[in-house]
Amino acid sequence: MIERYSERDISELWSDEHRLKVMLDVEIAVARAWAEEGRIPEDALKDIVEKSRFDIARVQEIERKTQHDVVAFVSAVAENVGENGRYLHLGMTSSDILDTASSIMLRESLDIIINALDEMDAEVFGLAEKHKYTPCIGRTHGIHAEPMSLGLKFLNWHSEILRDRGRLEHARENISAGKISGAVGTYAMCSPKLEARVCELLDLKPAKISSQILQRDRHAEIMSALSLMGCTLERIALEIRHLQRTEVREMFEPFGVGQKGSSAMPHKRNPIKCERICGMSRLLRGYLITALENVALWHERDISHSSTERVIWNDAFNIAAFMIRSMTKILRGSVIDERKLAENINLTGGLVYSQRVLTFLLDELQLSREDAYAIVQENAMKTAAGDGKFLDLLLNDERLKNTGHADLPERLRALFENNFYLRWVDDVFARFE
Amino acid sequence: MIERYSERDISELWSDEHRLKVMLDVEIAVARAWAEEGRIPEDALKDIVEKSRFDIARVQEIERKTQHDVVAFVSAVAENVGENGRYLHLGMTSSDILDTASSIMLRESLDIIINALDEMDAEVFGLAEKHKYTPCIGRTHGIHAEPMSLGLKFLNWHSEILRDRGRLEHARENISAGKISGAVGTYAMCSPKLEARVCELLDLKPAKISSQILQRDRHAEIMSALSLMGCTLERIALEIRHLQRTEVREMFEPFGVGQKGSSAMPHKRNPIKCERICGMSRLLRGYLITALENVALWHERDISHSSTERVIWNDAFNIAAFMIRSMTKILRGSVIDERKLAENINLTGGLVYSQRVLTFLLDELQLSREDAYAIVQENAMKTAAGDGKFLDLLLNDERLKNTGHADLPERLRALFENNFYLRWVDDVFARFE
Amino acid sequence: MIERYSERDISELWSDEHRLKVMLDVEIAVARAWAEEGRIPEDALKDIVEKSRFDIARVQEIERKTQHDVVAFVSAVAENVGENGRYLHLGMTSSDILDTASSIMLRESLDIIINALDEMDAEVFGLAEKHKYTPCIGRTHGIHAEPMSLGLKFLNWHSEILRDRGRLEHARENISAGKISGAVGTYAMCSPKLEARVCELLDLKPAKISSQILQRDRHAEIMSALSLMGCTLERIALEIRHLQRTEVREMFEPFGVGQKGSSAMPHKRNPIKCERICGMSRLLRGYLITALENVALWHERDISHSSTERVIWNDAFNIAAFMIRSMTKILRGSVIDERKLAENINLTGGLVYSQRVLTFLLDELQLSREDAYAIVQENAMKTAAGDGKFLDLLLNDERLKNTGHADLPERLRALFENNFYLRWVDDVFARFE
Amino acid sequence: MIERYSERDISELWSDEHRLKVMLDVEIAVARAWAEEGRIPEDALKDIVEKSRFDIARVQEIERKTQHDVVAFVSAVAENVGENGRYLHLGMTSSDILDTASSIMLRESLDIIINALDEMDAEVFGLAEKHKYTPCIGRTHGIHAEPMSLGLKFLNWHSEILRDRGRLEHARENISAGKISGAVGTYAMCSPKLEARVCELLDLKPAKISSQILQRDRHAEIMSALSLMGCTLERIALEIRHLQRTEVREMFEPFGVGQKGSSAMPHKRNPIKCERICGMSRLLRGYLITALENVALWHERDISHSSTERVIWNDAFNIAAFMIRSMTKILRGSVIDERKLAENINLTGGLVYSQRVLTFLLDELQLSREDAYAIVQENAMKTAAGDGKFLDLLLNDERLKNTGHADLPERLRALFENNFYLRWVDDVFARFE
Repeated sequence: MIERYSERDISELWSDEHRLKVMLDVEIAVARAWAEEGRIPEDALKDIVEKSRFDIARVQEIERKTQHDVVAFVSAVAENVGENGRYLHLGMTSSDILDTASSIMLRESLDIIINALDEMDAEVFGLAEKHKYTPCIGRTHGIHAEPMSLGLKFLNWHSEILRDRGRLEHARENISAGKISGAVGTYAMCSPKLEARVCELLDLKPAKISSQILQRDRHAEIMSALSLMGCTLERIALEIRHLQRTEVREMFEPFGVGQKGSSAMPHKRNPIKCERICGMSRLLRGYLITALENVALWHERDISHSSTERVIWNDAFNIAAFMIRSMTKILRGSVIDERKLAENINLTGGLVYSQRVLTFLLDELQLSREDAYAIVQENAMKTAAGDGKFLDLLLNDERLKNTGHADLPERLRALFENNFYLRWVDDVFARFE
Repeated sequence: MIERYSERDISELWSDEHRLKVMLDVEIAVARAWAEEGRIPEDALKDIVEKSRFDIARVQEIERKTQHDVVAFVSAVAENVGENGRYLHLGMTSSDILDTASSIMLRESLDIIINALDEMDAEVFGLAEKHKYTPCIGRTHGIHAEPMSLGLKFLNWHSEILRDRGRLEHARENISAGKISGAVGTYAMCSPKLEARVCELLDLKPAKISSQILQRDRHAEIMSALSLMGCTLERIALEIRHLQRTEVREMFEPFGVGQKGSSAMPHKRNPIKCERICGMSRLLRGYLITALENVALWHERDISHSSTERVIWNDAFNIAAFMIRSMTKILRGSVIDERKLAENINLTGGLVYSQRVLTFLLDELQLSREDAYAIVQENAMKTAAGDGKFLDLLLNDERLKNTGHADLPERLRALFENNFYLRWVDDVFARFE
Repeated sequence: MIERYSERDISELWSDEHRLKVMLDVEIAVARAWAEEGRIPEDALKDIVEKSRFDIARVQEIERKTQHDVVAFVSAVAENVGENGRYLHLGMTSSDILDTASSIMLRESLDIIINALDEMDAEVFGLAEKHKYTPCIGRTHGIHAEPMSLGLKFLNWHSEILRDRGRLEHARENISAGKISGAVGTYAMCSPKLEARVCELLDLKPAKISSQILQRDRHAEIMSALSLMGCTLERIALEIRHLQRTEVREMFEPFGVGQKGSSAMPHKRNPIKCERICGMSRLLRGYLITALENVALWHERDISHSSTERVIWNDAFNIAAFMIRSMTKILRGSVIDERKLAENINLTGGLVYSQRVLTFLLDELQLSREDAYAIVQENAMKTAAGDGKFLDLLLNDERLKNTGHADLPERLRALFENNFYLRWVDDVFARFE
Repeated sequence: MIERYSERDISELWSDEHRLKVMLDVEIAVARAWAEEGRIPEDALKDIVEKSRFDIARVQEIERKTQHDVVAFVSAVAENVGENGRYLHLGMTSSDILDTASSIMLRESLDIIINALDEMDAEVFGLAEKHKYTPCIGRTHGIHAEPMSLGLKFLNWHSEILRDRGRLEHARENISAGKISGAVGTYAMCSPKLEARVCELLDLKPAKISSQILQRDRHAEIMSALSLMGCTLERIALEIRHLQRTEVREMFEPFGVGQKGSSAMPHKRNPIKCERICGMSRLLRGYLITALENVALWHERDISHSSTERVIWNDAFNIAAFMIRSMTKILRGSVIDERKLAENINLTGGLVYSQRVLTFLLDELQLSREDAYAIVQENAMKTAAGDGKFLDLLLNDERLKNTGHADLPERLRALFENNFYLRWVDDVFARFE
């Protein structure tokens, strides 16, 4: 991933340095397991544990000659271990080391993502609680519908994030598996017992079965979970972009102090961070296509997936972490304009309460369906045409006056109060306790 | 989905008839829940339960006028219920009915898929058990590697299918949710209590929170699980296509008796069913892109997802069921040529045992690494050049003869036995008990 | 494609009836070409031309037995031709007929699409011309930027449509090719000359080279052009959805007279047709993935693409035609609110003219950069804070009054006129003459 | 793109250094055009031309403060120009510079790709000519069909590459456009005339119309052409992988001298370069999804596409160039085993000639259709069952002997000659002259 969108921890995790370090952990675990079985002398293990190290430049030098990255790595480490270096990689196929190491790195990456997501979710939930009773207009099709609680909008995000978390956890579970089963999964030069011990040392489960490699549905599931999570962040970012529109101005992503564009055109606060997140979600969808096409490999493996994985794992985790952390900062620094929220509810002159008025005429005033509709429709049309506020028109409607309810004005006025739409907010929040 | 690839049960499930039937179930559950709260008179409920029915032609007639499918549906049913029809749809928003009904239909579809998958998996596992001890050549990069158990190849599929099943179950769990929360999720005209009761009657959980609709990550997760499952079927189908190649001929998909092409060109048994499955997996990947883009909707919902869902749910479930059932039949009728399997293991003149020979020279004969490599390499090169079988060349190698082991010939011969590669098969199978 | 989104002409074109009809055209052209070479007697050709016909039920009946669609088709036709029916399909491979027929059908489909697009484009261009001098606010990032011509917005769509048309024409050129080259492209039972003549009779070019089939990059290019065109329609539909928002209300898609939802909530005119078009574009992107994966087939062909093509060609052309025609109607019946357009330009109190004011202070009043910025910024900030209109504040700014220009007020007022932003409109339109 | 898959020329082209250099070219062209109109003094232009330069570190330093890359760039250059630096960027919007510069860079990248593709195509065409008359078995469904010319297989690739080239050229034409039209495409601070002159200086066409930006269908078309080209390379690579299988061994990608894996297992020449190319094609398909989703932006632009373009342009062009150049080397160093090619044609015991035998019995021996089929079928079945070569069985078939043709044996033998299948090769090649 380009530097601009790289996250330090993710990038370090996918660096050559770290990759080789994890591979070394696997090699050492293998040596330890062999030693426990007596296949490697104790002093050889001691040497391997104490002297194993590598110099990246040396590894690359050997790789240029052998064109084989694992052979180069093992040779470079063995040089440092000395005579007992020959016990390194005993009975191993390259993929035993590579795929087991990859599982570790993917799990590490998922842990970073899940932690970052939790941190972001805390902001989301914080906003939800803060605005539990803040009325705002609910919109469908981009058109005003009915008043609602702004907190519910945020709580809905929280709920979706929890499902994303569940999917990431599910993928994490499926990738927490190692494989030490040899060239085609027969344990020709090792054994299921050795595999089980190596995996135990690395806090992995042994894959119940493997070919030369771990099957790629496990890896594609990760990308699927990341991509779905990206869709959630896109949904949040899209919402903020809508709320920040010049015509809406209810919520704003934070705007840096020295950030350009603010002075001569103070209205020009562009939601560029949210726009960026929307774009990045498209990247994740693209990577998913690649990951899915990696599943159907030939026979006991072909290596067509390998080049793509060098690219998309690094890229996808960086982008995902960048998106989450960027969104965390956006939410933390976001500005909500409650005055504007209130104003927008009334933008249609009260038409957003029409459903409730209709129900009142039917249920409380016991008007006939025909009459009720006629009264609501006519006054609604007038409101829409700009001939007055909906409430005022209703208060002056002779047909309603003639119903003879003395308290009608105050009862009509009560229909235009937002609290009605917030009466179940506590119950909904209670479901998340 | 076109008739050619339609599965009767899936198509019926996604027919207008069934869709409206499920919607009616939801409407009746709503009426029942209201009646329990006293909002609907008992006799009205009785009428609704007993008289609710619909005629599709009538629904369509009304829809042509109103251009609103739910309004048309409710009107058509209400006409049949009579006076008490006015209690139908009380306090409901269209999406309350539509999305709750969709959850039921998606769950029903997933159940069909999961059942079909289990049936297919039984075939896979049957093949695995049957060929537990059948040796075959393991291949990586399309190149012969080492002998292995054919049963393990199948067991590996079984293992991946189990993970697919897990993902489908996870998606099923997330979609087993209803929503009766009104126009923007505030329960303006109903209540969380009513929602809970309606969902209980329909054997669903109430969505902890919803907007006008259930959030589309739930639905995209289904498509993701289907698409991943498609990749698994593609992997299986691809393997069979490879094994059926004229040059390989180890395994064949079944060939119909009257099927054209068999007589004048008996070698021309084309794996068209497996090819078709490979193609269909591409369809599922395409539908996933659509489903993912449906997640980030505007505000409390926009309806851009709706048209696509009318298309892709029906299509994806039909294709998925078709693929699974087609594969079930393929596996059930597949032909395995054990003679050819054995022949292919020896196609390289014994080179596939070279790794084992090398290990033997090092570990058993205690040759120096240099000598061992030289002996293996030279004889391997000769074998590859067509100058003899690897075993024969080794038996005649002076350097080996000179090691003075009287039993060397028989020990060398033993290295070329396939049982060695099957010695852990039982252990691997045991992991699936 | 489901009936709801099917277009009659496209669906008929992809019906079995039409497909077999085109295949028959190809068979007859083949017979004619053979007859010209003397390979088929004249009277046999006469019989073939006059008596060739098919009954779909009979074709399907034979296919159930042979499981081969082309064999079934030829047999069914031959039955009607009688004795001379044996000259049908002479020297042909199924794909000779199928792929040549497909090219014809794809070209026919593209012609429908291109014609429909031209019709839609006429609406777009009509709107552009009509609103050439209608000022509207230009927006970037969803934030007001500067006034512009509404006609330019539409003309920009027109320009993109022209590029789509160019891509569709390019794809049409590449698919206007037939192949009559036999089982693996060697013309074993025919000849390049025959192929050339058959193609000439069908108004196609002969593919310069083919395997058993026409290579699928040609077909994927069509899907790519359709998908890109879908993106254009999505862009247009997305714009209308934005302009129809409750807070914007500048442009509306047409609203049917009896369409539900209009009466009690007259503000609730939802842009559902545009939303649907946005969704459908996602379908086209999905189909493209499938089409691209169809390119890399095995050797001289594998048939994995075939099942997908039965689905996606029909679906994609139906959806594309539906989108275009739906958009044509939307544009034709769209309502533009010029009063609201004018109102929205002034929504920021004149801040959208700030860039122009700044330029005026620098270039005309020759103020120092420091002073000019200070004056613009301070007044802009006040405007944004709701402390007055930008023009009023400037008119009252002491620093400007002190510049001693008697005509300053009128010169300042002139900066807030929209004509300035329309002065190049004619020049831009002239580029499209 | 990660270093492993980066191409030096592409990476340099997409470096910050080069990007800013091209932006500077655009800025200078703007200054020159203004000077020609008299808006900038001649000496100011002279200063700008002579002193404009930038230091990346300084640009980044300013960007950290302003968070605006173009502002930072212009400021950094202006500092070096001195007093006349204020004439830089006169009347420009950031996107005027960015998008015009991007067009130049995209065109440069396409030129590299097209040149590389031509070089690769020369290898393809060279192989086609070299093997014009080399017989090989043609395969459909992975099953042997009929003999063909190996040269035709390669010529088919050449033909597809020419179409790819055509699509790349078409995309190049559409991106060879600049835009200098201001904030929302109204030329508020410049003019169509200025735009035309700037574009002329940069050898671009002016975009007929633009918003703040060039519309993204132009850019998505590039990605579509790249992705389609990737599919072609995937098809070629897939073919070589198939031909290199242990069971096929007809064609091999080159194998490095020191490359690991060759010695102890000489049969283990894995087609890893071709596998890598297959994988990389999946990356390009993924980037296309992203590029397509970038088309439908809000109003006169939103910036959601920008982050993705920073990633995918660089990545896609690097990957594409890597794939092409890797394939060029593969083809150049590929090894074709003509002995094995001949052997494989006969793998089915002559069954691949059965179609021709059948035609002979019908057309030459004038046998009844019934008899001809019976003879061919029975002997073909025996051949398939391993009971003899097809030719031998035919030579000994009593029914044929009884036809009384003295020269039958030699005529039958002639049917098994491959030249028959090569008789049109010259004609096909002639189409490419």
